[in-house]
Amino acid sequence: MNEVIQSLHERKSVRVFKDIKISDSDKEAILLAAMAAPTAGNQQLYTILDITEQSLKDKLAVSCDNQPFIAKAPMVLIFCADFQKWYDAFLEGGCSPRVPGVGDLMLAVQDSVIAAQNAVTAAQSLGIGSCYIGDIMELCEEHREMLELPEYVFPATMLVFGYPTEQQQNRPKPERCDLKHIVHTNHYNRMSGDELRIMLQKKLGEQSYEDWAAAFCNRKYNSGFSREMTRSVGEYLKSFGYERK
Amino acid sequence: MNEVIQSLHERKSVRVFKDIKISDSDKEAILLAAMAAPTAGNQQLYTILDITEQSLKDKLAVSCDNQPFIAKAPMVLIFCADFQKWYDAFLEGGCSPRVPGVGDLMLAVQDSVIAAQNAVTAAQSLGIGSCYIGDIMELCEEHREMLELPEYVFPATMLVFGYPTEQQQNRPKPERCDLKHIVHTNHYNRMSGDELRIMLQKKLGEQSYEDWAAAFCNRKYNSGFSREMTRSVGEYLKSFGYERK
Repeated sequence: MNEVIQSLHERKSVRVFKDIKISDSDKEAILLAAMAAPTAGNQQLYTILDITEQSLKDKLAVSCDNQPFIAKAPMVLIFCADFQKWYDAFLEGGCSPRVPGVGDLMLAVQDSVIAAQNAVTAAQSLGIGSCYIGDIMELCEEHREMLELPEYVFPATMLVFGYPTEQQQNRPKPERCDLKHIVHTNHYNRMSGDELRIMLQKKLGEQSYEDWAAAFCNRKYNSGFSREMTRSVGEYLKSFGYERK
Repeated sequence: MNEVIQSLHERKSVRVFKDIKISDSDKEAILLAAMAAPTAGNQQLYTILDITEQSLKDKLAVSCDNQPFIAKAPMVLIFCADFQKWYDAFLEGGCSPRVPGVGDLMLAVQDSVIAAQNAVTAAQSLGIGSCYIGDIMELCEEHREMLELPEYVFPATMLVFGYPTEQQQNRPKPERCDLKHIVHTNHYNRMSGDELRIMLQKKLGEQSYEDWAAAFCNRKYNSGFSREMTRSVGEYLKSFGYERK
C-alpha cells in the first residue's frame, strides 16, 4: 500500500480538536488542493465560505443540529454549489442563459463535494483531522440569511478541521461493509432480506437485527434532523424549478 | 508540498488510454480506497457498478453524450446514490420508514461522490488516470433499464480509468481561477460584472469577454446535453417526491 492510499485508509472523522490554530500556509495548501480537484468543464461550480468569525461559528454550531464541537473547530469551510456566478457571468456577457435547473444543481453539488474531499485528503496528509457536517443543508431560510446566499447557491456541505486529540487519534475507524455488497457487476443487484441482513450483520453487536434496525431507523432516518434536511433541500429546489408533488 | 498534496495537484483528466489492463489487485485497491472514504453515519449510501461487459461499455459510450473513449476504458465504475438498500433494510427489520426524500438523495449523492474522489486519488497514486462522466445523469429512462436501477437509486457519476498515453501525460492541466474569487470570507460575496470579468479573464485567450461567454454558454450550458441533464435529473426527483413547478 503506497503512502497516498494508506493516508486515505487512515483518515477518520475527528470531532474533538486540540487548542492549536491551523497556520495560514497549511490553510492555503488545503484550499489550493481543493481547487486542484476535478471540476466539470473546468467551471469550478462552487464557492468556499471560510468561516473565521467566532460568532458565526457559534450560530452554525446551533443551526447544524446542535453540535458544539463546530464552534471549537479552528477552521470551518462551507462548500456551496454555485450556479449564481455562472448565471451572472453569462448575463454580463450579453448571453441569454436558460434559468438554472436541477441538473445544473446536481453537477455543482458534485463539483463542491469533489473539492471538499480533496481538502479532507490534503488536511489528513498534514496531520489535520476533519469532519463533514451534512446538517448545513438544513434550515434553508436561516442559513440563506446567515451566509447571504443568493437564489442559485446551495450550501452542499460543511467541513470542520483541527488537530485531533489523542483520544480521537486512538478511536477506531468504523468498519465498512464488505466489498461484495457495495460493488455490483454490470447491473444493480437489489438485495434480498437475507442478503441485507448479512451485509449489515457486523453493525448489530449484541442486538437482534430487528432491534438494531428499529433504533437506527429512529435515530438516523425517521428523526427530526433527517426530515428537516428533506424539507430544507426542497426549499432550495424551488429556486431550480422543482416543488413537492 | 508533501507527496499526497503533490499527487492531488498532478491529477488531471485522462481521456485516451494505453491498451493495458488494470490488474485485479489495483482494481481492488481503488475500490477499497473508495469504501474508506467518509460516509454519513457510516451508512455508505452508495452502490458502485463495476462495468465489465464490453457491450455495456459500448452502450454507455453512446448514451453518455457520444464519447467513444468510454468504450475503450479498461475500468468503468458507476457511483450510484443508493437509498433503496436502506429503505429495504428498514422494511426487512419491521420498521416504518418514511419514503426517501430529496434530503436523503442529496446526502447519498454526496456520499457517492466523496467515495468516487477517493477512487480517483488512489488511482492517480498507482499511475492510473481517470475521467468523471457527469452525463450518466442524463437519459434517466434508458439508464434505469440498462443498469436495472430501482426507484431509489440514482446514478450520480461515472468514472473511467486507464493508463494515460504519453500525449495525455504531457497535456497541461487547465488552470483554475484565483483563490480569492473562489474562497469568500464568512459570507457569500455576489460578484459584480467587473469582478466576474477579472475572475474569468485567463479563460478568454484572444477573444473578447462577450465572444468567449457566448461560445461557452452555447457549448456548456444552453446545449442539448445540459438541458437533457436537467430533464433527466427531474425524472429521478419524481421518485423522491418532487416535480417541475
